[in-house]
Parts: sequence; C-alpha cells; structure tokens
Amino acid sequence: MTSPLKLGVAGLGTVGAGVVSLLRANADLITARAGRPIEVVAVSARDRGRDRGVSLDGLAWHDDPVELATAPGLDAVVEVMGGSEGPARALVEASLAAGRPVVTANKALLATHGVALARLVEKTGATLAYEAAVAGGIPAIKALREGLAANRITRVAGILNGTCNYILTEMRVKGLPFATVLKTAQELGYAEADPGFDIDGVDAAHKLAILAALAFGRPVDLDALHIEGIRHVSALDIALAGELGYRIKLLGIASQEKGGVTARVHPCMVPEASPLAAVEGVFNAVLAEGDAVGRVVLQGRGAGAGPTASAVVADIIDLARGRTAPLWGAASETLDASPALPMAAHRGAYYLRLMVLDQPGVIADVTAVLRDARISLESMLQRGRAPGEAVPVVLVTHECEEAQMSQALTRLAGLPTVVEPPAMIRIEAL
Amino acid sequence: MTSPLKLGVAGLGTVGAGVVSLLRANADLITARAGRPIEVVAVSARDRGRDRGVSLDGLAWHDDPVELATAPGLDAVVEVMGGSEGPARALVEASLAAGRPVVTANKALLATHGVALARLVEKTGATLAYEAAVAGGIPAIKALREGLAANRITRVAGILNGTCNYILTEMRVKGLPFATVLKTAQELGYAEADPGFDIDGVDAAHKLAILAALAFGRPVDLDALHIEGIRHVSALDIALAGELGYRIKLLGIASQEKGGVTARVHPCMVPEASPLAAVEGVFNAVLAEGDAVGRVVLQGRGAGAGPTASAVVADIIDLARGRTAPLWGAASETLDASPALPMAAHRGAYYLRLMVLDQPGVIADVTAVLRDARISLESMLQRGRAPGEAVPVVLVTHECEEAQMSQALTRLAGLPTVVEPPAMIRIEAL
Ligand SMILES: NC(=O)c1ccc[n+]([C@@H]2O[C@H](COP(=O)([O-])OP(=O)(O)OC[C@H]3O[C@@H](n4cnc5c(N)ncnc54)[C@H](OP(=O)(O)O)[C@@H]3O)[C@@H](O)[C@H]2O)c1
Ligand SMILES: NC(=O)c1ccc[n+]([C@@H]2O[C@H](COP(=O)([O-])OP(=O)(O)OC[C@H]3O[C@@H](n4cnc5c(N)ncnc54)[C@H](OP(=O)(O)O)[C@@H]3O)[C@@H](O)[C@H]2O)c1
Repeated sequence: MTSPLKLGVAGLGTVGAGVVSLLRANADLITARAGRPIEVVAVSARDRGRDRGVSLDGLAWHDDPVELATAPGLDAVVEVMGGSEGPARALVEASLAAGRPVVTANKALLATHGVALARLVEKTGATLAYEAAVAGGIPAIKALREGLAANRITRVAGILNGTCNYILTEMRVKGLPFATVLKTAQELGYAEADPGFDIDGVDAAHKLAILAALAFGRPVDLDALHIEGIRHVSALDIALAGELGYRIKLLGIASQEKGGVTARVHPCMVPEASPLAAVEGVFNAVLAEGDAVGRVVLQGRGAGAGPTASAVVADIIDLARGRTAPLWGAASETLDASPALPMAAHRGAYYLRLMVLDQPGVIADVTAVLRDARISLESMLQRGRAPGEAVPVVLVTHECEEAQMSQALTRLAGLPTVVEPPAMIRIEAL
Repeated sequence: MTSPLKLGVAGLGTVGAGVVSLLRANADLITARAGRPIEVVAVSARDRGRDRGVSLDGLAWHDDPVELATAPGLDAVVEVMGGSEGPARALVEASLAAGRPVVTANKALLATHGVALARLVEKTGATLAYEAAVAGGIPAIKALREGLAANRITRVAGILNGTCNYILTEMRVKGLPFATVLKTAQELGYAEADPGFDIDGVDAAHKLAILAALAFGRPVDLDALHIEGIRHVSALDIALAGELGYRIKLLGIASQEKGGVTARVHPCMVPEASPLAAVEGVFNAVLAEGDAVGRVVLQGRGAGAGPTASAVVADIIDLARGRTAPLWGAASETLDASPALPMAAHRGAYYLRLMVLDQPGVIADVTAVLRDARISLESMLQRGRAPGEAVPVVLVTHECEEAQMSQALTRLAGLPTVVEPPAMIRIEAL
C-alpha cells in the first residue's frame, strides 16, 4: 500500500489547478489518509503556455487529453475539462474501457450519459467517481450512496446552483431587481458572462438528475425533467413571500410518488423555518428523506476551486484506499424502472400574484376562475388601493394539481382586468 | 459477491431491534446496494423471554454475547449493548483480536479506548465501524473521515445531544424553567429517568472526543475535555439571549489552535443566523471547517431506532462491499500528537448576567472588576428598575482569555451588591 497512486489530470482550469495545488498543499495528511502518496504525473489542457498558478515542472504534457486513457504509468485519470460530449466524454469512455479508473466533476456528462456509463463500468470493472459533480464540497454523493444506503429514499431536494441562490439572496436582502443583481454577480465572478446555463436551471437539472439516479436507482431522463429558471422571479414576489413567511429558492426536487418518480427544478417558496430557507448566498444544500433516517440536510460551498478540489481529492483518496461503489448505488440490472411522472400530475400549493385593475368585480372574476378549476384558496391579500390602476393581488392556494393550475393560469391571463402575465411560484413545505 | 454476509447481533434493545427490523424491511434494496444479502444469524441479549417486536425465529441465541466473537459461521459482529467496559468491550476486543469485523454504536467505548482500539485493528487488520456512535442517522463519521479527507480540519463542532437540544428548545419556545421541561422530556421518553449522562454533557463529550480524533487524527483524552451541562441554563438567560440575537445551544467544539487542540462541551450563545441556531428539538448537527472546503454543516436525527439503525446498516453495507478506512482516518503512527490545551487558555467573548441590587455605584463596581481583569465590554444592558431590589444586568464582553474571565467571575461573585452567583455563557460566532 505504499506505492504512489499516479494520476493524469485533464483540464487545468479552476478545478484542475485547484486539485493539483490541494494535492501538494496537504500532501502530508492526504498521504496518511490515502495510505500512500498521490502524485500527479501527467496533465492536459488546451493552452500549454498559460500560467495556471501551479508549477507543471516535471509533469508529462499531453496536447490530446484522450491519450491519458492509455498513457503508460498512470493508475487513474482526473477529468476536469467539462462538457457532456467532445474530449471529456471521449477520455472518460476510453479510460473506463481500458479499465482505468476516472474521477470527474462533470455533471453534464453524468446526467446525460448516466445509463450508458453504468453499463460501461459494469463491463470493465473500472470505477467512475463523481463526488464533485453535485454540490461542490458537500459530500452529498457519498452521503446518499453510502451513508444512507439502508434507506428507501422518498425525496431528495436541494439548492444546487450557487449563482441562482446568490442572486435570489441579494434580491431579497437589497430589494433589487433580477437584472441589476445578475450584473453585479457577473462582475464579482459569481455568474458567467453567458449566464443561461445557471439561471435557466440547466446546471441544477444536471445535478438533480444525478441525485435522483442515486436516490431512486434510476437515471432520470433529462427530457423528463421539468426545468424553470429564476429570470421571472421579481423583487416584488420576493418581498411578498417574506410577508407570507416564505423565502424563494431555486430548488431541484425529486420524489417517489405512487405511480413513479417526479423530478423538477423551479423557484419555490419554502417556509422561513425550513432548513433550506436559511441557506443563503453561494451556499448549496442537499436534503434527503429516508424511511429509517428521516430528514438529513447537508450544506456547504457548491463551487469554487477549493471546495470542488476537496471533493475531487476525496474521490482520489477513496480510489487509493480501494473504496468503490456501483455508479448509481446498485448494479444496473437491479435498478428501478418506475416511470417519470409528468409535471401536469404534480400536486402542491401555489402562490399567485396578479396585477389587476383596482375596480369593482375584479376579485369576483379571479376567484370564479379558481373555483371553476376546483382550486381552493388558503388566503388572499390585496396590496394598496389605486382606483382604476394596477395593484397586486396575492393568492395562496390549497394543494391542487398542476394541470388544474395551468388551466386556471391561462384563464386568469385572459381576464381583461388582469394587466400582466400572472406570477406563479410553487410552495414547498420542505 | 453473492454469498450472504452473516451477522451476529449483540444487544436487542432500541438499536439492536431497529437494526434487525431495518435489515428485513429494506432487504431488497440493501441486498442490491451491498451486492449480496445480509443475514442476521445469531443474537445475544440478557433476557431471552422478552418480546422485542422482531421475530427471533431461526436465529442462534447466545446468553454470553462474547461468544459471537468466535462463534463459527459469522462474518461480522454488531455490538449494540453499550457501555465502555463489561461485555461490550470484551466482545469488541475479542472479535477484532480474532480478525472478525465489528460494527458498533458505542460512543462510550470509542471515546474511552480509542487509542488502544486503533492499535488492535492495525494489528489484526479487522475493521471497527462506528457511524452510529456520533449524531445517529447523520453520516458524520463518513463525511469527516472520507468526504473531507483532503482537508486540514481547523474546527469541528456540533449539537451532539438531542435531549439537551430538545430541552433548550422547549425552554425557549415555551419560556419554561429547566426542571419543568426535563420532567416533560422524561415523560415523553426524550430523556432518561437518570438524565445526568445527557444533561451534564457526558454523552456529548464522548461524541466530541470521537469527532476530534477524526478531525485532528488524535484521540482526545476525555480527562482533557472541558465538560459543562445545561442544568444551570435559566429561562431568563435564554430570553435575554434572544434579545441579543443569540440562541443557547449545548455545543461540543474542538479546534486546532497554534499550540495544540482544544475540546470542550458547554452551553454556547450562537448568532441566530448561524446554521446551528436553526437546529431545534431532538435534531443534531455537525459542523466541520476545512482549509479547502470551508464550512460544511450536516443535520438530522441524532437518536432513535430508525436513524441509529440507518447508520449501523450503512456500516454493514460498507463491510459487505469491502469499503474500510483506518479507525481515526490514518494509521496511528502518522497521528498528530499536538497537546490538548487547557480551558484556561480558551479565548472568546462572554455573556455575563448578574443579579445586582438596584442601587447607585453597582455598575461602577462591576465594570471596575472587569477593567482590573483587562476585559473590555461590547455592550451592557440593565433590565427594569426596582430601587433596592435585585435586577438583572447583562454584560457582553469582547474576546478575552478564559483565565481572565474566571478571575473576574470570582471577584464579581464576591461583590456585596451581586446577590446570586453570576451566570456566564460563552459566545461562539459559529
Ligand atoms: N468551477 C467550479 O466551481 C466547478 C464546480 C463543480 C464542478 N465543476 C465541473 O468541473 C469541470 C471543470 O470546470 P472548471 O470550472 O475548472 O472549467 P474551466 O476553468 O473552464 O477549465 C477547463 C479546463 O479544461 C481544459 N480543456 C478544455 N477543452 C480541452 C481540450 N479539448 N483538451 C484539453 N484540455 C481542454 C481547459 O484548457 P485551457 O485552460 O488551456 O483552456 C481548462 O484548463 C466542469 O465539468 C465543471 O462542470 C466545476
Ligand atoms: N438509542 C439510541 O437512540 C442510540 C443512538 C446512538 C447510539 N446508541 C448506542 O447504541 C447502544 C445501544 O443502545 P440502546 O439504546 O439500544 O440500548 P438498550 O435499549 O438499553 O439495549 C441494550 C441491549 O443490550 C443488551 N445487553 C445489555 N447487557 C448485556 C449483556 N451483558 N449480555 C447480553 N446483552 C446485553 C440488552 O439486553 P436485554 O434487552 O435483554 O436487557 C439490550 O437488548 C449504546 O452503545 C448506545 O450508546 C443508541
């Protein structure tokens, strides 16, 4: 157990450089915990000349990252380039096919090719580890796959995108509109120049697909996932949520229902006392409910060089110690095949905020639409008075079906006294 | 990998019966996740006739639990009797000596004999797993030992005793005195008839010693631990804490300081925005700070049949999969030997509440004592006016040394106008 574990690292960006420098900074304790030294011996990136803040002296350089799959003298490969296709996919598949273990942070790859990758690792016996792919430094994969392995998981949910959580937190605390906060987040490096991947919920959806696969033993088809981002969340709705005792969070939620599994990413109102409500700024959280354990919540930093490298290196230490687990927690032939349920079948309570003309009969029209859709109201709140002008009306419903709500929303939007598209946010008693 | 893992279970109380029934209830998915069936084949308890809510048909019964260490046909032993000595210790030592792996929930044993047990498992190569020993269903051991293995841990802290947290929560929410809430907790089964082990902080100290050993690679001598319970926490101090923006929690905290490691269990005031402040009732939480990952917080149920069995069975699944780790995360010869620092060297801010006679000059006397001890005040609050009678005066200090504070407390208690022993609670910015 004292021969070093020799690594090839593909990708030397935020995560890759973070991994190389963490392995060096904590080499003493990592060696002790891994039972053997861990050495990066080969690397690959696009631009050989770029300064990455870590010395690459003495390391073999590969222009083609896929060479790391079979280059002699390597015990494992770390894939931290990213992307569900292209060189990342080619490298991971070639390594696993060659029986060489892979550690990756690549959620897009796992979420898109989860079923095929499970078959591949089962065929070759090579390990594919991906702790860093979900919730950065939080050991969520390990907790779900090993720590809670005795449980039938009924629900898994989380704040899975730090950019969105940062924006929603800033909007709430400072009372600023979405666009203003997004701009600041971009200046601070908390949001990408092209922010769609984060703020439209795609990144959170990739992570949720992975959590759902682990929780229910069933890689969730990304196409079956309902995905909404946070662009349409207004500062007004955030403020009104606060008055009602809620916080607005972008959540990924997957749950086992009678007829199958639901998985969805969208803004939610969670009660202020919920453990998820208190998770603010760039922090992430993962919540799991198991039949034996009840509710477990994990929180920490979901991104950044240090937290992500912490997760990648944990996987490397597991490899060095020979600790492995099936990709989705169990052999694929035992995996569940219960269907993905459509969003229309979702049941829950809803917050609606309408901008209506302040004139007699408006409330009667609105409540008639809800009555016709068999939706009952828990509360209604009218804000301010401005005869003949637009004022917000807030409606909180009892539990109903999404299909009923969609129908009601279409009719509400068509009312002549409703002057803006209705704002709808689902309420989650998490 | 399809031969069953055969277990002997010693102890059929809350946890033991919970383990047997969880293994049966979720046999399908546990088999899939473990890669092989898990079978309880032998058991031991004191009273053979007692109904334990689980069928023992077909299981070998041993009056002497220590026989399970060597009884033929067993692959591993589950020790859930409890106690740092007696049959629990004898069984664990005999099993490990015979090379037979052990899963235990026994924090007293681990905290008391941690160093000797590490030597024993290193000698024989047998695994000793103990996820259930700390924070029940929360996979805290796995998170610290494997999930955060790449990090230099600077601090580990937690709400480690559900009984205390339940009592403090009830006192706060209902404004009731300690004794009243303790009585209700006993009636509800949240506190033992003999509650000292919980409310005097001993149980939390056992768990903290285990967390500190994992965090710093250094089994902490229980004698070096500063332990205070919650008997002296008053409803008045809880209410005043609320006014100052704090909650009172019994925390275990271990941290790496320049000259060594500190480990202490005592009531703390934590800011209301702290992730630990929101952990209420019987819930537990574990917080870890690592140099790469930053702060990670895990919360969930710390006790009870289901959550504890969840942790025990997770360890059993790890055994079935061949996943192991050194007892304290690294081989004992690599373990840190930095000394335990005395509580007198602790530095922090303090809350003091004095009952003083409402008469001229009192505040001058009190502040003179603090000045003489070189303790500076952050704020002072005098409650109500009742000339010539006792009124509370609250003082919040800036950071100072515990030794200074002890000296000041002695002098404050001796002031003729201070009519009750001063209440002191440490403030932790966790
Ligand atoms: N950043 C985070 O906080 C975070 C958190 C969790 C997971 N992740 C995941 O970690 C992975 C890496 O993210 P990152 O933030 O480190 O990305 P990044 O900073 O953009 O780095 C990507 C690296 O991959 C290299 N690369 C790209 N295409 C290549 C090719 N064809 N051949 C060789 N090298 C190539 C780049 O080379 P050059 O440097 O020469 O351009 C760069 O070093 C992604 O899967 C991401 O989703 C990131
Ligand atoms: N309860 C929890 O929520 C919890 C949570 C975390 C960890 N733990 C730990 O788990 C362990 C067990 O706790 P528990 O609550 O299950 O205790 P318990 O309900 O008191 O059960 C103890 C069991 O051990 C048996 N036992 C005691 N002495 C024995 C002996 N000399 N020979 C054979 N059997 C003996 C008892 O037999 P009889 O039934 O015949 O008396 C009983 O079945 C302890 O180490 C505890 O600290 C408990």
